[in-house]
Amino acid sequence: MSDSSSDLSILRRCWPEYAEVSTTHRVAVHGVEIGGAASVVIAGPCAVESYDQTLNVARAVRAAGGQLLRGGAYKPRTSPHSFQGLGTEGLEILAEVRRLTGLGIVTEVLDPRLVERVAEQADMLQIGSRSMQNFPLLTEAGRTRKPVLLKRGWSSTLGEWLCAAEYIAKEGNRNIVMCERGVRTSCQWSYSRNIFDLNVIEPLRRATPLPIIGDPSHATGSWTLVPSVARAALAAGVHGLLIEVLEPSGDREQLKCDAEQAITPETLAEIVAFAKAMQVPGIPEPAPEPTL
Amino acid sequence: MSDSSSDLSILRRCWPEYAEVSTTHRVAVHGVEIGGAASVVIAGPCAVESYDQTLNVARAVRAAGGQLLRGGAYKPRTSPHSFQGLGTEGLEILAEVRRLTGLGIVTEVLDPRLVERVAEQADMLQIGSRSMQNFPLLTEAGRTRKPVLLKRGWSSTLGEWLCAAEYIAKEGNRNIVMCERGVRTSCQWSYSRNIFDLNVIEPLRRATPLPIIGDPSHATGSWTLVPSVARAALAAGVHGLLIEVLEPSGDREQLKCDAEQAITPETLAEIVAFAKAMQVPGIPEPAPEPTL
Amino acid sequence: MSDSSSDLSILRRCWPEYAEVSTTHRVAVHGVEIGGAASVVIAGPCAVESYDQTLNVARAVRAAGGQLLRGGAYKPRTSPHSFQGLGTEGLEILAEVRRLTGLGIVTEVLDPRLVERVAEQADMLQIGSRSMQNFPLLTEAGRTRKPVLLKRGWSSTLGEWLCAAEYIAKEGNRNIVMCERGVRTSCQWSYSRNIFDLNVIEPLRRATPLPIIGDPSHATGSWTLVPSVARAALAAGVHGLLIEVLEPSGDREQLKCDAEQAITPETLAEIVAFAKAMQVPGIPEPAPEPTL
Amino acid sequence: MSDSSSDLSILRRCWPEYAEVSTTHRVAVHGVEIGGAASVVIAGPCAVESYDQTLNVARAVRAAGGQLLRGGAYKPRTSPHSFQGLGTEGLEILAEVRRLTGLGIVTEVLDPRLVERVAEQADMLQIGSRSMQNFPLLTEAGRTRKPVLLKRGWSSTLGEWLCAAEYIAKEGNRNIVMCERGVRTSCQWSYSRNIFDLNVIEPLRRATPLPIIGDPSHATGSWTLVPSVARAALAAGVHGLLIEVLEPSGDREQLKCDAEQAITPETLAEIVAFAKAMQVPGIPEPAPEPTL
Repeated sequence: MSDSSSDLSILRRCWPEYAEVSTTHRVAVHGVEIGGAASVVIAGPCAVESYDQTLNVARAVRAAGGQLLRGGAYKPRTSPHSFQGLGTEGLEILAEVRRLTGLGIVTEVLDPRLVERVAEQADMLQIGSRSMQNFPLLTEAGRTRKPVLLKRGWSSTLGEWLCAAEYIAKEGNRNIVMCERGVRTSCQWSYSRNIFDLNVIEPLRRATPLPIIGDPSHATGSWTLVPSVARAALAAGVHGLLIEVLEPSGDREQLKCDAEQAITPETLAEIVAFAKAMQVPGIPEPAPEPTL
Repeated sequence: MSDSSSDLSILRRCWPEYAEVSTTHRVAVHGVEIGGAASVVIAGPCAVESYDQTLNVARAVRAAGGQLLRGGAYKPRTSPHSFQGLGTEGLEILAEVRRLTGLGIVTEVLDPRLVERVAEQADMLQIGSRSMQNFPLLTEAGRTRKPVLLKRGWSSTLGEWLCAAEYIAKEGNRNIVMCERGVRTSCQWSYSRNIFDLNVIEPLRRATPLPIIGDPSHATGSWTLVPSVARAALAAGVHGLLIEVLEPSGDREQLKCDAEQAITPETLAEIVAFAKAMQVPGIPEPAPEPTL
Repeated sequence: MSDSSSDLSILRRCWPEYAEVSTTHRVAVHGVEIGGAASVVIAGPCAVESYDQTLNVARAVRAAGGQLLRGGAYKPRTSPHSFQGLGTEGLEILAEVRRLTGLGIVTEVLDPRLVERVAEQADMLQIGSRSMQNFPLLTEAGRTRKPVLLKRGWSSTLGEWLCAAEYIAKEGNRNIVMCERGVRTSCQWSYSRNIFDLNVIEPLRRATPLPIIGDPSHATGSWTLVPSVARAALAAGVHGLLIEVLEPSGDREQLKCDAEQAITPETLAEIVAFAKAMQVPGIPEPAPEPTL
Repeated sequence: MSDSSSDLSILRRCWPEYAEVSTTHRVAVHGVEIGGAASVVIAGPCAVESYDQTLNVARAVRAAGGQLLRGGAYKPRTSPHSFQGLGTEGLEILAEVRRLTGLGIVTEVLDPRLVERVAEQADMLQIGSRSMQNFPLLTEAGRTRKPVLLKRGWSSTLGEWLCAAEYIAKEGNRNIVMCERGVRTSCQWSYSRNIFDLNVIEPLRRATPLPIIGDPSHATGSWTLVPSVARAALAAGVHGLLIEVLEPSGDREQLKCDAEQAITPETLAEIVAFAKAMQVPGIPEPAPEPTL
């Protein structure tokens, strides 16, 4: 890493206007700015399962104070026999729900052949944890100029994550938001799917001006842990959150995807209130740059 | 674990007065209560290196709002050629500093043969991460009736940690405070010594009424990361913090132990202010108990 | 996993002719059978860097007793500024070298849009560790009917790995060979890039009749460790090895990719001799199936 | 680590007669030499549960070709409610069984206060994985002059392991045998308790002349995996094995400790035959020393 990291244009040392660690490159998504002093909450269903479900969740997200809508039309699933998402139909549902609610859309793209199609409908392209080193996909995302939410691989180093961002930046697209979503360890299996890596937040903010979002849903895999991890991520210094939400009076058992981790709209409202009460914290100076 | 965990007397199901997850067993240390609505800050040097250093740090801790003094007289060191602590002399320094500052003393014990001697001077016995499964030591600590701060092993499961506490409780001592101090992962080496496991805090609080303390110093190994991890631990729901601190205008280079992770008294004061502004958060109900 | 794993057609319970754990589905690659009693050595350069280099290595591989040639035309590189492979030109070099040496070609494909093109030249498609859950790529590989070498993700569970194979099988292609290439841990960084997971070999052989190959080059990242890990993998029960090799009297310093892990042809010959002297070991019966 | 490791007297650079990596410091245990060209098999029950059981297993070990008897009188157990070993009575059983079978005794010591008592009966003191950094225990073991089998902590680095050995050596006892017993990872839980770290074997042999033993029982936690991991450890270059064994026609269900990992005497005989057929392999030269 050491040799190539000096070339990374997303690092502060290559981006003169962001040489100070107190500065952040702000990324605008459908009129919402990520990277400012106010943190941003992106929320929605894991997967778009139907028009009604998506609209219901979106209205609940807006009512709770969420600013952007997440929802998967293309889903990366461990097993080929699991629900794979509604695909094009899901994208159309998301576009219609945006028209009705005004919420910008964040949705995942898995396949480089579909980047253009997804970018036509989405306001922000999500690159998932399993795709962090899918280099053809990163390159296509870099060519669209759409904002990109780049999730960290669940066992990736900081250097690998920054290099993945560089694949996008190299094509001319610097509208990149980094997303920490938890890492696998040898000791958390009995109580949590992953551990949210809050130690990486400050080194990442120090190394690059790109904003960072925390995903407490995937970092835990359990609705009961989402509020505590969401609060902690904000206190540690993320610029926003990405959270999976149930329909109001929704039935957890009916969900086709990650049912255990979706929170209720009421819990979302509490998290939004916590987020609004807290400014994104600064970073102590001076301190050494991390080794990448 | 599954069979034996049902026998653990430190679990809520075996402790009728703490059946509700909103309740915590409060542990009093030299008049300071750990486990209440207000969080507690324990701070001090890594090692007691001299009388002057210890007194200077203690006064700075008290001035910054810290409530208990930490400091090692017996140090577990990776190499036998590193400074091993001042031993008995260190205990005497701590006792004298308590007399002058009024701060109760938290200090580590490594050897079952020394538990009695350390317990004569200390207000709280610390069992370190490397000793979490030192069963003879746990048993001796259980026999003293002194409050015990039980650090988690850096790759220990929740079940192993709770069972370690049970070794202490089995001897009749339930004045146990759990301390999360970070876990080793496969991906944090370039920027942090460990990752603070904030995902464990709620499952631990749910499983047992014992209070929990976060140690951002060992969870990071770097003074620059301590404030963000300290804030996050509080937001996630710990009942207090354990932090290593420099002397005022102290010279980091001169320290014999863990120099890179000690914060200044000014930074400590900011963390104490954050801690005072935030009540220890509650836990959502109902939720399933974790599998231990 | 538990629900969906019962659907996996690559498992012994779904493949009646392979119900006995002593049986293996043999996969033929350019006349070489993987999965029989004799283990197979696949060797070659990390990357195809030039015609001369590739031909020199291939001749050395054949002289040392290797049976198939590996070599990357498309390389997944952490940084976009590193050498990315020769692409189409590399495929042509491989095809010409096969014509001259008779060695079948194993080469990586990264991009679903290129699967068809690579399959025209290759005898076996390699899916790399970073692509194990690149589901569009797995699906395209399944549509080709070419043998596929499926590397395990460096932090993937056994269930995730088997499900990835199922994405290929679901398209009708069961010519799949599993490749263990090492996992990341929290404790190996100072001496090895990964740890070869030899504990997975028997559970994998028990769960599925697909053959398994060990990759000591990526499992170590260091030429000095390759021989010991290669021998151990064979003793544990792999059906063959995948190894990176230098040119005869090649200059390690000149290599553009993974220079530290390539062994000399002389060392390769010693490993081939060890492999020939040892039959692929059987599996003890009866034993419970692993939980996936 | 880097500074202090230069002081380690157990390293080749501090031990002139072992400057060549082909040389090993041989440790004699009750007439059996560990560290020579022939590998040594130490086998026996997990715990000494009764006189009859221990004698039956010992006779089976001797009949199968094992050279030393292992068996725990003091057991480190996760839960205080599990069987903790027979203690002094167990030591007496071991001494009597040695008298009857001629097999030297390897047994664990957990408590520095008991080192002298255990050393009176044992031929080799075992320091378990949980005790690798129990520094008072290491120091007491160093004072006895008995051979010591030092197990690696399940998440310890190579440097930490070597420093633990140095605590023993510093007291004047260099009769140390290192024992690799598996590490915890983020991905092996469904099929194995740990992963045997075969990548560490050569770097360890290169760094120090101390012999190394592999423990396939704890590295797997499952009798079905023991043979494949035992063979692999030998092929990678260990100087011997430590294995848990059932009584002949013993009932796995009746065992109080680690019942799932004990193999039958028949399987032990097969492993001994494999061990005898293979010389301990050499180490390639020249190669760089690992960073500790």
